[in-house]
Amino acid sequence: MSRERLYLYDTTLRDGAQTNGVDFTLHDKKLIASLLDDLGIDYVEGGYPGANPLDTEFFGTEQKLERATFAAFGMTRRPGRSASNDPGIAMLIDAKADAICFVAKSSEYQVRVALETTNEENIASIRDSVSLAKDKGREVLVDCEHFFDGYKANPEFALQCAKAAYESGARWVVLCDTNGGTMPDEVEAIVGEVVKHIPGAHVGIHAHNDTEQAVANSFAAVRAGARQIQGTLNGLGERCGNANLCSMIPTLKLKKEFADKFEIGVSDDKLASLVQVSRALDNILDRAPNPHAPYVGGSAFVTKTGIHASAVLKDPQTYEHVPPESIGNHRKVLVSDQAGKSNVLAELARTNIQFDRDDPRLSRLVEKLKEREAAGYAYESANASFDLLARSTLGTVPEFFRVDKFDVNVEQRYNSHGQRVTVAMAVIKVEVDGETLISAAEGNGPVNALDVALRKDLGKYQKYIEGLKLVDYRVRILNGGTEAVTRVLIESEDEDGRRWTTIGVSPNIIDASFQALMDSVVYKLVQSNAPV
Amino acid sequence: MSRERLYLYDTTLRDGAQTNGVDFTLHDKKLIASLLDDLGIDYVEGGYPGANPLDTEFFGTEQKLERATFAAFGMTRRPGRSASNDPGIAMLIDAKADAICFVAKSSEYQVRVALETTNEENIASIRDSVSLAKDKGREVLVDCEHFFDGYKANPEFALQCAKAAYESGARWVVLCDTNGGTMPDEVEAIVGEVVKHIPGAHVGIHAHNDTEQAVANSFAAVRAGARQIQGTLNGLGERCGNANLCSMIPTLKLKKEFADKFEIGVSDDKLASLVQVSRALDNILDRAPNPHAPYVGGSAFVTKTGIHASAVLKDPQTYEHVPPESIGNHRKVLVSDQAGKSNVLAELARTNIQFDRDDPRLSRLVEKLKEREAAGYAYESANASFDLLARSTLGTVPEFFRVDKFDVNVEQRYNSHGQRVTVAMAVIKVEVDGETLISAAEGNGPVNALDVALRKDLGKYQKYIEGLKLVDYRVRILNGGTEAVTRVLIESEDEDGRRWTTIGVSPNIIDASFQALMDSVVYKLVQSNAPV
Repeated sequence: MSRERLYLYDTTLRDGAQTNGVDFTLHDKKLIASLLDDLGIDYVEGGYPGANPLDTEFFGTEQKLERATFAAFGMTRRPGRSASNDPGIAMLIDAKADAICFVAKSSEYQVRVALETTNEENIASIRDSVSLAKDKGREVLVDCEHFFDGYKANPEFALQCAKAAYESGARWVVLCDTNGGTMPDEVEAIVGEVVKHIPGAHVGIHAHNDTEQAVANSFAAVRAGARQIQGTLNGLGERCGNANLCSMIPTLKLKKEFADKFEIGVSDDKLASLVQVSRALDNILDRAPNPHAPYVGGSAFVTKTGIHASAVLKDPQTYEHVPPESIGNHRKVLVSDQAGKSNVLAELARTNIQFDRDDPRLSRLVEKLKEREAAGYAYESANASFDLLARSTLGTVPEFFRVDKFDVNVEQRYNSHGQRVTVAMAVIKVEVDGETLISAAEGNGPVNALDVALRKDLGKYQKYIEGLKLVDYRVRILNGGTEAVTRVLIESEDEDGRRWTTIGVSPNIIDASFQALMDSVVYKLVQSNAPV
Repeated sequence: MSRERLYLYDTTLRDGAQTNGVDFTLHDKKLIASLLDDLGIDYVEGGYPGANPLDTEFFGTEQKLERATFAAFGMTRRPGRSASNDPGIAMLIDAKADAICFVAKSSEYQVRVALETTNEENIASIRDSVSLAKDKGREVLVDCEHFFDGYKANPEFALQCAKAAYESGARWVVLCDTNGGTMPDEVEAIVGEVVKHIPGAHVGIHAHNDTEQAVANSFAAVRAGARQIQGTLNGLGERCGNANLCSMIPTLKLKKEFADKFEIGVSDDKLASLVQVSRALDNILDRAPNPHAPYVGGSAFVTKTGIHASAVLKDPQTYEHVPPESIGNHRKVLVSDQAGKSNVLAELARTNIQFDRDDPRLSRLVEKLKEREAAGYAYESANASFDLLARSTLGTVPEFFRVDKFDVNVEQRYNSHGQRVTVAMAVIKVEVDGETLISAAEGNGPVNALDVALRKDLGKYQKYIEGLKLVDYRVRILNGGTEAVTRVLIESEDEDGRRWTTIGVSPNIIDASFQALMDSVVYKLVQSNAPV
């Protein structure tokens, strides 16, 4: 049975750029466009030439995309002006892009209140703008802004706008749920009406996530006949974001309902790179990935409870709706106080530590984990500390060095210029190979000073930790109050880009931090097979 | 027209506790249960007694909830055992809870692979467990695990399981999309079949977010006849989370399709506290709130400058699908200094500080706030620090005392018994009324030592701060890395039970903590009208 083609249109670089806190550079934009092209997205919207200097610059040079159609976004001609005499449209025509996506109002209320013009002039503006762009040889799309709200208030006018776009030669008429408040059943019913007037193969959907249903709304439109979905990577976008392509692509590829009926431009191979693509965007934005993101999140295939864990180990299908590898993700069975032996064994297997199921040390490890977790340790978030605990229960972690004592001091006073200054200093005394080494260091704060002092001189081990750096430091107070227990998580990175997380728990934040720092250094030495 | 009652069941404390990285304390659980009760949630599931020591302890004492039904979660009896002789069920019966929610398999495949028993025994287990709990006077719910996957493979068996639960006396049969892979149209079709056998008023839906459609799936079930929705605050939950109550409640209350047909336990007043409730959970978990969360996110009603913004200023309806105030959120249009002033004036009015709109000091305060917030201060979370900043800009905060210097020391070493000990000590030099006072104190950690030393002797002000205590201390690292900026929030309480929050920001955690401690003491003196 031949499958219908369903098109994907990405607006990460335009609607995604509206996200509060997102600020792409020119380089970012180029990189993201080529990521999308490589992934197999059909249309890449680069931005809005003329709206800001960056987008104008971006559209000033040809983007060399392999297969994606590169689109520029902008407004239809202004009321009372001819299309050929509209500076906004001139910018769009000048933009180096294959396609032009016009945004046009399709709600009577919006035309009156926001645009302050007449219905007739609005429709004329759509016709004129589309015709001009078609004449200039561009593929044309029209985003019908506020389509669903407009349709609910005045279906005739909303349809007239959409039909004007199609009849003037637009390849795609995209129905926008601009304010994001429409429900999936409404979308399905309204798109069902639209495709009676415009062939579904020319209808697209642009949904926002304001009721957390952008994905469901997009699929509802496809069910009703629409054949283009607009969205963004990681659901970036103004307010609550746009429909998330990283959630929709796997569903379209892996769920029978869609996979049997539709073909999309993303191949199976490329689907397996989706986690990478999602992470690449987070890296560009310097954002922490959302661990709970569907399909691509670090926790999307994590099992924590004991009973679930043992079932997953019997047959992954019991608790996984799709195979994690298909999108480049992987299964993880967590160690936590919910855990039984099964979780622990699975985690050990992943970290390549051999334990026999009947080894009495395994029960000891499970006991130790439970005790520690009751005290506030969270090993599920600290893979390296878990690794060390497991190895030390096996008896194979050597004492590379020994910290005899440390002393951290923070002083706040007025300096000779009458300014208030805070100085943090640490002294540490370490024994390595029978030799006593004392190091001192200043830092921005007590933990930084201690970290610098600890790693200043570890004798013969120094070479193994040269490239090590702390990339994240998190603190949580358990139970509230300064007298409560403090949990510190430290993420470290070595010169090869490997990352690991360690944990410390203590009533004293300095002690907790020091435990995590120590684990990080020792873990690195174990991994490097440093000689004792 | 009379509206049907739709019930909300919260599982933040059970399914939400499965979230990777979430670790509730007993105090957290109590707090969250009372938040949910106050919000108007019908059922609060407290956890799984017997699964871990914390949940067992939690169910050991009566939770005093005003109106919510408090539920304990657990398994039906094990295969080949009688219900009255099953230790798991005994734990559930012993648990201090109004209702018991049994989880039972309803998929033939799961019964065979995960449970390793027969279909008949599985159904017998459901009947026996429900009957026993009913006999003991509990309201009973049955979570039919893997219901949708089970139904698709063998509809008869899935239905048999659900019917067994209902016929044995379960008040609710909850259909679970355990692996989270079911599509909304499948949910609607399958629930539509189920309600032909079990009245919809006894059918619930439990959806997971693995395809980003948990909310849509829950609503699809309601459209098909289900009358209970299970979910969690902020969509907490294993893997990609559960259906998000913070997204669903506003839709149920504000969208005509639901509001006209259904009544829920959350009043309009309580709906307006939803942002607060969502933030409270983040605070308990020490998580940064998701700014893009539907309805409750900080960016959910943010409009970037430009065409949208001017339309929003003409009529908010142009770009808002619901009024932000209805859920306790607010519109943000960052167009001009004027908008900033309005926000600040509103905040000042709340704290009873009189400022004239044209007072030049108001612009100064707005500038100061902008600078401070850019540096990491978050005054919306620190009412007392905001109050002090506003008063000091007005010029009315006296210098009650002056801290000349402090010195904090943390030492870790071996004591004479060979035990590793960590000692924290602080010395502080304060000038009060021309007199110099030096105090020293030990503490559990550096901040505690500093706090104790600061409040040990403040001369004539001592009597005002006698009853003051710290009730919460939170730390967040902004930008990651030990060298990044640290934000400290301290919540204090006086002898009359009044609470206030203060903030400090610095690269040095001790300095940041000290700022917050100082603000707390000064705020108390201002509030007490202490004489200078």
